[in-house]
Amino acid sequence: MSSNRGLLFIVSAPSGAGKTTLVDRLVEQVRGLRISRSYTSRTPREGETDGVDYNFVSRARFEAMIARNDFLEWADVFGNLYGTCASDTEQLLAAGDDVVLVIDVQGARQVRQRAGVLTTVFVMPPSFDILEHRLRSRSKDSEDAIRRRLQVAGHEVAAFSEYDFIVVNDELTAAVDRLRSIVLAERARLTHMRGDVEAIVRTF
Amino acid sequence: MSSNRGLLFIVSAPSGAGKTTLVDRLVEQVRGLRISRSYTSRTPREGETDGVDYNFVSRARFEAMIARNDFLEWADVFGNLYGTCASDTEQLLAAGDDVVLVIDVQGARQVRQRAGVLTTVFVMPPSFDILEHRLRSRSKDSEDAIRRRLQVAGHEVAAFSEYDFIVVNDELTAAVDRLRSIVLAERARLTHMRGDVEAIVRTF
Repeated sequence: MSSNRGLLFIVSAPSGAGKTTLVDRLVEQVRGLRISRSYTSRTPREGETDGVDYNFVSRARFEAMIARNDFLEWADVFGNLYGTCASDTEQLLAAGDDVVLVIDVQGARQVRQRAGVLTTVFVMPPSFDILEHRLRSRSKDSEDAIRRRLQVAGHEVAAFSEYDFIVVNDELTAAVDRLRSIVLAERARLTHMRGDVEAIVRTF
Repeated sequence: MSSNRGLLFIVSAPSGAGKTTLVDRLVEQVRGLRISRSYTSRTPREGETDGVDYNFVSRARFEAMIARNDFLEWADVFGNLYGTCASDTEQLLAAGDDVVLVIDVQGARQVRQRAGVLTTVFVMPPSFDILEHRLRSRSKDSEDAIRRRLQVAGHEVAAFSEYDFIVVNDELTAAVDRLRSIVLAERARLTHMRGDVEAIVRTF
């Protein structure tokens, strides 16, 4: 529809709120929306693939990227480094793709400072109990690690008011539909449509 | 989901752009979204039903409503009076329903002055030629009336930049989907979700 520069979206959520599944479904459903894959220094977990789940790089390479200011945002999470490459994201946006970054609260703060216009979405679990249940049922983490995640989640959900939109992940299909709606609505916003619409007005 | 006051939407479009069909489909698809039916002093056209297409009232009754300041907006369109009843709309919003007003550019200006927060959408025909074709193929109007409508349409599309969102009605299903997305996205907006989300945060 539009030959505009792409739109930038951030989706954040506490660990266990289901953001990865949500965003994977989202990009399946929305043409022209791409994930800017994060880089990480941690080793792949069972079932994770380099270039799909993350770009897995050595800690040395990650630190060299930090030194070159390559990251739009990066963070040390439980001793592992995670980051979003600024030039990867810029390339997609310049090509007219809309881009979604799946990053945490701290990362979102860094991107807000560095990027221009962007739309931010916080995915909320329906309650603490449901988040705890999801973490325990899916995670291979130790009891200690789970407790630590829940504690961090408590800090993260408190940051919801820094975001433009809130999607409560009560039911997967409905939550994906709400995320998709946020993307389609941003595409229909006057500021994004102005060029196309001016061309239509000129036919009158 | 929410016990909040409802959200108010305006959908405007030049005559022939298909706004009535679009909005009828929209309210079929979105639970909790209601049309605040307009009042008009004109006589029903063939196939139109009182209380469904419009509330058809006498000119005397319409003028009495104007005198009582009953209308959120009203207009004289080609000699017929059209208006949106403020108390009808308020009742729906207070009950927590989201409300969509299908009104013209002038009406939208009046509502912007009088109502508080609202979200406005302009439905654009894909081009002048397509609008002309649609008007000629569906309308029982005289050549003069069609020319007058097209001229008015030219003024109306020029007002697109007064609106928050633009939906180009190129293909009905896609256009309804975009309208629906705008409604769902507004529901997910932080300001609307704050109460619900604060309740979730308190479970942590």
